[in-house]
Amino acid sequence: MAPPPSTAVSPVVALIVRVLTFICLIISVIVIATNTATSIVGVDQVNIKFNDFYAYRYMLATGVIGMAYTLVQTAFTIFFVTTGNRLGGDGLALIDFYGDKALSYMLATGAAAAFGLTVDLNRLPGNDSDTQDFLNKANAAASLLFIGFIFSAISSIFSSLSLPKRF
Amino acid sequence: MAPPPSTAVSPVVALIVRVLTFICLIISVIVIATNTATSIVGVDQVNIKFNDFYAYRYMLATGVIGMAYTLVQTAFTIFFVTTGNRLGGDGLALIDFYGDKALSYMLATGAAAAFGLTVDLNRLPGNDSDTQDFLNKANAAASLLFIGFIFSAISSIFSSLSLPKRF
Repeated sequence: MAPPPSTAVSPVVALIVRVLTFICLIISVIVIATNTATSIVGVDQVNIKFNDFYAYRYMLATGVIGMAYTLVQTAFTIFFVTTGNRLGGDGLALIDFYGDKALSYMLATGAAAAFGLTVDLNRLPGNDSDTQDFLNKANAAASLLFIGFIFSAISSIFSSLSLPKRF
Repeated sequence: MAPPPSTAVSPVVALIVRVLTFICLIISVIVIATNTATSIVGVDQVNIKFNDFYAYRYMLATGVIGMAYTLVQTAFTIFFVTTGNRLGGDGLALIDFYGDKALSYMLATGAAAAFGLTVDLNRLPGNDSDTQDFLNKANAAASLLFIGFIFSAISSIFSSLSLPKRF
């Protein structure tokens, strides 16, 4: 009988990191998706929503894709923790490796794109308090996505260290 | 005698990827650092430089740090290719792994921050041709940094696959 595929870290630790990633992403998605403001431009009132900005749309998209991916991975990890069987064995280790890497890059770019826009919008003179509030919420969502990225980067390190031995 | 530390890919391939990363980064840094424009706001002329925007400053910083790191790694790889000795052995493999990972995340966020700002600035109504030119150059620099990121991500995959066998 072949020895069961081992992993570099305890699957329970891996599971906790996945769950933390998911929590950060879901809060980030909720914060950005519900973010609206009414800004006064001259004599007009303008409604601002997150989807007026491509950077925030991209951030939302990465958050949602990240949630879906993390959910699937969490299910696999729970299966591993409860039964002790790793579905797919070494083949799955490679899929984990590339998947975690791709996801962590995606979350990093999602958070960075939102920060890149928000930081410079924040510096514009004459933002009224409602606009400021909108930008603060966008910042909060980007920060949460960034924390989610940190956790997904940790998952990515775990899955790299769990790769089958050198080819 | 211990067998010489092996790598997952030929060191020549690793060297080519490093050199390509460096070329992309140096062109990106030159393009963004020399990017200026004169914009007309009302009756005033306003000089715009890349360092008026935090996102572009961050992009430049990641490009410069990336150049320094890639240069050192290229030197090590050239030493490996020419002498066949890998300095540091398995210890260096771990440093490569974490270093390449960190660098590729940094380049990804640098490019994404610049894109996040540029895409939405581009959509503002009433950009004059000089401003448009400025934004196009910023876009070009971000695109080059993004290509540099792709190469550094490939380096990061190589260094993950070259990790010493599972702990």
